[in-house]
Amino acid sequence: MRFDTIIHGGTIVTAADVVRADVGIRNGRIVTIADRLTGGDVAIDAGGRFVLPGGVDAHCHLDQPEPPDAPADAPVMADDFRSGSASAAFGGTTTLMSFCVQHKGGSLTAAVDDYHRRADDQSVIDYGFHLILTDPTPQVLGQELPALIRRGHTSLKLYMTYESLRLTDTQLLDVFEVARAEKAIVLVHAENHELLVWITERLEAQGRTAPYAHALSRPSPLESEATHRAVTLVEIAGVPMVVVHISGGEPLEEVRRARARGVTVFAETCPHYLTLTAEALSAPGMLGAKCICSPPLRDDNAQAGLWRGIEDGTVDVFNSDHAPYRFDGQGKLSAGANAPFSKIANGMPGLETRMPILFSEGVVKGRIDLSRFVALTASNNAKLYGLHPRKGTIAVGADADLALWDPEKRVVIRNQSLHSNCDYTPYEGMEVQGWPQTVMSRGVVVVQDGELKVAPGHGRFLEQGPSSAWGSGDRIKSWV
Amino acid sequence: MRFDTIIHGGTIVTAADVVRADVGIRNGRIVTIADRLTGGDVAIDAGGRFVLPGGVDAHCHLDQPEPPDAPADAPVMADDFRSGSASAAFGGTTTLMSFCVQHKGGSLTAAVDDYHRRADDQSVIDYGFHLILTDPTPQVLGQELPALIRRGHTSLKLYMTYESLRLTDTQLLDVFEVARAEKAIVLVHAENHELLVWITERLEAQGRTAPYAHALSRPSPLESEATHRAVTLVEIAGVPMVVVHISGGEPLEEVRRARARGVTVFAETCPHYLTLTAEALSAPGMLGAKCICSPPLRDDNAQAGLWRGIEDGTVDVFNSDHAPYRFDGQGKLSAGANAPFSKIANGMPGLETRMPILFSEGVVKGRIDLSRFVALTASNNAKLYGLHPRKGTIAVGADADLALWDPEKRVVIRNQSLHSNCDYTPYEGMEVQGWPQTVMSRGVVVVQDGELKVAPGHGRFLEQGPSSAWGSGDRIKSWV
Amino acid sequence: MRFDTIIHGGTIVTAADVVRADVGIRNGRIVTIADRLTGGDVAIDAGGRFVLPGGVDAHCHLDQPEPPDAPADAPVMADDFRSGSASAAFGGTTTLMSFCVQHKGGSLTAAVDDYHRRADDQSVIDYGFHLILTDPTPQVLGQELPALIRRGHTSLKLYMTYESLRLTDTQLLDVFEVARAEKAIVLVHAENHELLVWITERLEAQGRTAPYAHALSRPSPLESEATHRAVTLVEIAGVPMVVVHISGGEPLEEVRRARARGVTVFAETCPHYLTLTAEALSAPGMLGAKCICSPPLRDDNAQAGLWRGIEDGTVDVFNSDHAPYRFDGQGKLSAGANAPFSKIANGMPGLETRMPILFSEGVVKGRIDLSRFVALTASNNAKLYGLHPRKGTIAVGADADLALWDPEKRVVIRNQSLHSNCDYTPYEGMEVQGWPQTVMSRGVVVVQDGELKVAPGHGRFLEQGPSSAWGSGDRIKSWV
Amino acid sequence: MRFDTIIHGGTIVTAADVVRADVGIRNGRIVTIADRLTGGDVAIDAGGRFVLPGGVDAHCHLDQPEPPDAPADAPVMADDFRSGSASAAFGGTTTLMSFCVQHKGGSLTAAVDDYHRRADDQSVIDYGFHLILTDPTPQVLGQELPALIRRGHTSLKLYMTYESLRLTDTQLLDVFEVARAEKAIVLVHAENHELLVWITERLEAQGRTAPYAHALSRPSPLESEATHRAVTLVEIAGVPMVVVHISGGEPLEEVRRARARGVTVFAETCPHYLTLTAEALSAPGMLGAKCICSPPLRDDNAQAGLWRGIEDGTVDVFNSDHAPYRFDGQGKLSAGANAPFSKIANGMPGLETRMPILFSEGVVKGRIDLSRFVALTASNNAKLYGLHPRKGTIAVGADADLALWDPEKRVVIRNQSLHSNCDYTPYEGMEVQGWPQTVMSRGVVVVQDGELKVAPGHGRFLEQGPSSAWGSGDRIKSWV
Repeated sequence: MRFDTIIHGGTIVTAADVVRADVGIRNGRIVTIADRLTGGDVAIDAGGRFVLPGGVDAHCHLDQPEPPDAPADAPVMADDFRSGSASAAFGGTTTLMSFCVQHKGGSLTAAVDDYHRRADDQSVIDYGFHLILTDPTPQVLGQELPALIRRGHTSLKLYMTYESLRLTDTQLLDVFEVARAEKAIVLVHAENHELLVWITERLEAQGRTAPYAHALSRPSPLESEATHRAVTLVEIAGVPMVVVHISGGEPLEEVRRARARGVTVFAETCPHYLTLTAEALSAPGMLGAKCICSPPLRDDNAQAGLWRGIEDGTVDVFNSDHAPYRFDGQGKLSAGANAPFSKIANGMPGLETRMPILFSEGVVKGRIDLSRFVALTASNNAKLYGLHPRKGTIAVGADADLALWDPEKRVVIRNQSLHSNCDYTPYEGMEVQGWPQTVMSRGVVVVQDGELKVAPGHGRFLEQGPSSAWGSGDRIKSWV
Repeated sequence: MRFDTIIHGGTIVTAADVVRADVGIRNGRIVTIADRLTGGDVAIDAGGRFVLPGGVDAHCHLDQPEPPDAPADAPVMADDFRSGSASAAFGGTTTLMSFCVQHKGGSLTAAVDDYHRRADDQSVIDYGFHLILTDPTPQVLGQELPALIRRGHTSLKLYMTYESLRLTDTQLLDVFEVARAEKAIVLVHAENHELLVWITERLEAQGRTAPYAHALSRPSPLESEATHRAVTLVEIAGVPMVVVHISGGEPLEEVRRARARGVTVFAETCPHYLTLTAEALSAPGMLGAKCICSPPLRDDNAQAGLWRGIEDGTVDVFNSDHAPYRFDGQGKLSAGANAPFSKIANGMPGLETRMPILFSEGVVKGRIDLSRFVALTASNNAKLYGLHPRKGTIAVGADADLALWDPEKRVVIRNQSLHSNCDYTPYEGMEVQGWPQTVMSRGVVVVQDGELKVAPGHGRFLEQGPSSAWGSGDRIKSWV
Repeated sequence: MRFDTIIHGGTIVTAADVVRADVGIRNGRIVTIADRLTGGDVAIDAGGRFVLPGGVDAHCHLDQPEPPDAPADAPVMADDFRSGSASAAFGGTTTLMSFCVQHKGGSLTAAVDDYHRRADDQSVIDYGFHLILTDPTPQVLGQELPALIRRGHTSLKLYMTYESLRLTDTQLLDVFEVARAEKAIVLVHAENHELLVWITERLEAQGRTAPYAHALSRPSPLESEATHRAVTLVEIAGVPMVVVHISGGEPLEEVRRARARGVTVFAETCPHYLTLTAEALSAPGMLGAKCICSPPLRDDNAQAGLWRGIEDGTVDVFNSDHAPYRFDGQGKLSAGANAPFSKIANGMPGLETRMPILFSEGVVKGRIDLSRFVALTASNNAKLYGLHPRKGTIAVGADADLALWDPEKRVVIRNQSLHSNCDYTPYEGMEVQGWPQTVMSRGVVVVQDGELKVAPGHGRFLEQGPSSAWGSGDRIKSWV
Repeated sequence: MRFDTIIHGGTIVTAADVVRADVGIRNGRIVTIADRLTGGDVAIDAGGRFVLPGGVDAHCHLDQPEPPDAPADAPVMADDFRSGSASAAFGGTTTLMSFCVQHKGGSLTAAVDDYHRRADDQSVIDYGFHLILTDPTPQVLGQELPALIRRGHTSLKLYMTYESLRLTDTQLLDVFEVARAEKAIVLVHAENHELLVWITERLEAQGRTAPYAHALSRPSPLESEATHRAVTLVEIAGVPMVVVHISGGEPLEEVRRARARGVTVFAETCPHYLTLTAEALSAPGMLGAKCICSPPLRDDNAQAGLWRGIEDGTVDVFNSDHAPYRFDGQGKLSAGANAPFSKIANGMPGLETRMPILFSEGVVKGRIDLSRFVALTASNNAKLYGLHPRKGTIAVGADADLALWDPEKRVVIRNQSLHSNCDYTPYEGMEVQGWPQTVMSRGVVVVQDGELKVAPGHGRFLEQGPSSAWGSGDRIKSWV
């Protein structure tokens, strides 16, 4: 048997197992896993490192266009597919899912076509698109969306907040109905929009516009409310849902309650909610703007509650919510050097640091084991978003997307060493243990020893299959 | 590369993945998994069937001796390792864990030695022993137990009820302390003994002694109570626990609450609790005695609650609690043909039907997917009881313990077709879909097409490593 | 000492005490409670009956005008203040609070003025008005509402559903802000409007329009959702809330959770939710229309959950939600003899039967004691709505509003014996034990032995003081 | 009409009402409440103060004998009925319930007789005895207990901890069965004895014996456990229970859960749990011993949880758990000046400060209103323990036990100003607002302006009737 590449001397980790074995790759796929392999055109010595499935980061924003009617000073995302995918790869991620956004009044299909053009020949790793519906017209619901789902966009992101993105409950239900018919899965950003606008107006009237006030404007009950509401809507409509970027133990408890009564709901959280708190928003001057994101950073209690959810299995997927805006007049400060918090772009970079942070805080600190790490960072994403078993695991037939992970390597995070176009990282100065040494995509080395080894365009678009959440039967009931 | 055996044409299922691949076996171990293998001395055609990890049934009672001072009419278990292991194998199980019981006043080490003698050269599949401590003397706690844990008995079963078995809270804590020091895991039978005895006395005084009254004697709050208490004890002592044979949604809720606040607790349930109710106890005459077990069978609500726990991830392991007593004067009726329920041996057979029932009711009915089936019936048990990755998965380096599973095969369960020495099955007449066609242990075919292919003694004793529950760090805290 | 009236020989019940004592009345008020009184111009012998505070029914709809733009076939309420108040009095109620509704586009003050005209000189018992805000314009919020609150309308009813009545979350918050500033209390009808419309459209598309489908169109999770959402809104805004007409144990659980975390929320339920189920909607033909109300009648489980809330103190107030529509072309069938459920007026009569039903099902059946009965039917309403201690109790200084209650009297409820203008009662044929013999308002006998003794206009408008919910301090925090 | 005494010019507070009225007293009972009274032999001017029902402190330990076999250095209670009752009266309490303890091996009846002798002619206020059963022999259960319940001891205190007092679960159930048959109510001290002993042994082995370690030895989960267990036992046996001296929000949550599922359980807490934390135990040297009590003082979170229970209605009764041991060799330090925490008598004084502390922290700070204050400190105790309406309220027919309460009076608590024989108060230096000016018992002034006005023996023994918890029907079910 001949292989294009073999990887020997590593310890393979999957969501199920940790075993000492070699990997044989042919035509970009894993074709053999064996106790000892020879015969590769190329042989890579893992040197005792872990051989992990390359990460699947199913929540990142890259080159996301502003609406046509956006103001001239709208912030610009720092990363396109080229820089974003490279940054991901350097951190061990080999599949990314970003968001293709329909603009209100616009066609969803056209948005997909446009987004393809933005991604074509740019990415160094494979990628898929979640669809963001913002205007569920009959045309979109009746024709475009079903066609697009069948073309492999089986996951739909829906917003309960942001003026330009949000759907009403009725619109959510309308989309859920199509999702049910076509067996798509929905991702929901759950915050009560009216409530946060109302609080924001009052804070602004009180002159409380500094970055820290952002956290006050969207308190935890507001996220719990929207989570509980979204749970009710999917329960009635009969569709599986991922509640994205859960920020603390309180909204997570709503997921736990929902599951215990039989609703099919999944929970995502992100690195910043596990490691930072709202204190970061009160850095001097406008520096807190770097850590403005929604839902906002919370407190120690919220964080402890999230970690318990990581440990007890309530949290299913761990993604970056990479939303890169430079700390300058094109990014965070596009509305001015002293803009009120409500005018500051939401989000922070995180594609590259996602896996090292969870490895260091989770695995090294003994909170989770290696298999749970792989499940959270790769396998569960691949399953929920219809990419499994091609992505997210190390198995015969899977794409040879691998990270040779050095569990001992200590890295002090410095933005200058990262590969995003963003000009800061919220983790500046944080030391982590564990970093990928070599990263492969479909059998090709993408990153090795800190160098990018492929040209833009190596990465390909991924058609998604149906989400594992649907199962084989008709377990998920609709109430209508 | 040469293999002793290759299995081709199957679909391999693990707790993480479902992939089309062949398996290469050498010296009883899986050495290669590949898209296509040739070169085996023996080639087995899976014919499109599922290739599952052989089941791990971590809760069965075989040839368990009565205490020396047991009454002459004490019931006798119908299965020894020979018949029990064969029955297991016919149902797809390739590893069993039975219970080695210390008798009060006796040595634990001696009990282990005796139990080895009972098992030696009898079993057709591999086996391990949980240790049942009933008399935690200083000698046992200080010397015997640590030595035995180090000899590979890393799981301890403890009873909160049964006069001859039960420990007080203090004794539980004393054992937990040793378990913590030695990194063992504890299994707890959780029912409030004093409460059930008290109710039983009153039922008997009222003349309510028929089998159905057994269910009344141990109502659900009593199991919830003991579960909650056991959770508190392990929380304080800092030791991981499996609550065994949880009978319904109410006690399961105590596990869910415990986890959500950070206690390391696992949940087991059994086939009968998912498929039968207390109505089975009101069969005519004494027939209900067949279904007497503890905790008792409950009602539809309890069952629905358990299924939600199967679906939402709260239930971790699914075992038979095989406790075979014939429906005759040596078994269920050893105290007389009209014995009161309190004199009837507890338990029912189930080793052989365990996996088919969960496959049929769970996978075929769309409640769970294949990977969750494997996790519940094999992988999680192997992990929790220190047998992973040797057992419970299909991975390079693992023992070649496999079940070639026919997902279409329909079987009407009849005791005459089963292989336990027990003379009845509680599932008589129940139709299931899915049954293993071929079962292998360490690369050797044990069962094929309904025939046993190995002699007693093929199965070997398994030393357990530490439970995965302990993790790598010091996540589990003691309060003292 | 001279009294206008004395009542002797009765057992006085308050929310705190049950004592054998006489009551002395002067100028319509209770001036003396003593072990033995003489010297009244009139002496009434209670004959061993209970002397209860006359009931306060704080949730009834009387002569409520349709909006100016209502369709010609809009249903007409069967009761005005004259018939409604009489019906109330015959059932032991001496204070009613009905709803003064602002129409969208209209003035709230004008609505109040109009409603006063409807009530003036009509009622036989005292009455107050909750204000229903449907159009919280700056004019209404900034001027009308504060002025009206100061004029004694300290309770505001707000709808989350019904097209012509409902407020958005933002509007709710805006009203809450004024309520906080002026120390008013809010009553919220909690159902998710968008969800119920969405389900209704689908049921109608499926041809499921018979009365029973009404229950399907507004399932329990939808009520729990709105309750949870309303709780969040008042928590943030810092205002006390009564969740009205809670239909089952599930939404009630949201109230329980809210209180346990410190939110000031109160729970109301109604006779029909404690005694009827959705089965009533499947009566032959259109008869089920009689029992259409929102939230809809539920099932036995929901009912059992409500009773537990009555018993454990979670339910605070018990009101009729009297909404009388005749079963004819002016009422329930105004949209046609076969109108779909969505066109059938919501509500059912209940003013007269409210107290007898709770006495019979609650006190006689041993679920609650006499003081709790008084608290639920009178005192708690008076306190929450700023009428205490003038109304809702028997105490010196209180209005002499009394019901001499015969606890042994058995009555088979027949609409022909009731005094509402409605042509049916949902309790036709139900036997209750306990009925008032004599009912007094401000010392005047209003009803005696089944005869009305006063002319319309005896009843007077009540200015409300601040709700007891606000307490004396600043316990209720706003988050902004 | 002539009165022995009239109280004019006050505002009467009951659990239901707050009204301006005068009180007329004859033969020690309230015979008239009226807007204006004249004609008393004695007229007391309340001067605008509140006229409260004298407090009922249903949990205090006075002159409680040690067991016959107690060690010579057993601690001695500082207060007998004489000093204890005086101290109570100075703080506004006019009824106390102390504990008559059966010693193991001894007769309960004899204990009652002895305890009567200790109380006879000593108390300045009326008193009742809860019975502490420690040895439920057939003689006690079958004869003594039923007879004593019928003699007016309708409340039974049972311990789950303390070697000399505690009952096993079986013994608890046996007592509950008699309590059910005779309609008594049980009070349970809920801590898991075996667990606390086990922790204590380990702390002592580690040399952690200073007072602060007491709090570590009985952590909150241990109290939650016992509470949950006790709830289960009373649920099965069918008897109402008061969980006494709940120390924080966690065990209180078990009460809330129990009620929500229909179990008849009541909650008591005490002043120290609402105002002190375990920090008090780390005072220099042995000073922390003053605040050793069981359950122990907790932390801010626990305290906040209790306050929420005070506010949301979960806490029913508020008592002192007065257990006075001097800080000397006869009291706290009886086992030596450096005794380990486990040898230090549990408890602290509190009879006199109970009502001022709840008034100041609860009413003045706006957490509760006056009626809730009266309910917690007087009425609910009287009802639960069968003393209502004779005690615990201001109503015609009730004993004229009254406290004229000055809501403005500010007092800095100093032990030298208190009237217990104990030589310290845990509240030394704490300022409270609100203190009784005049206290009356059966129409006689007991305390006025800081002086005791009656001789020992004014107080009389109270026979209790059945607890209100039983209700009128058969609502409380037994499972057997």
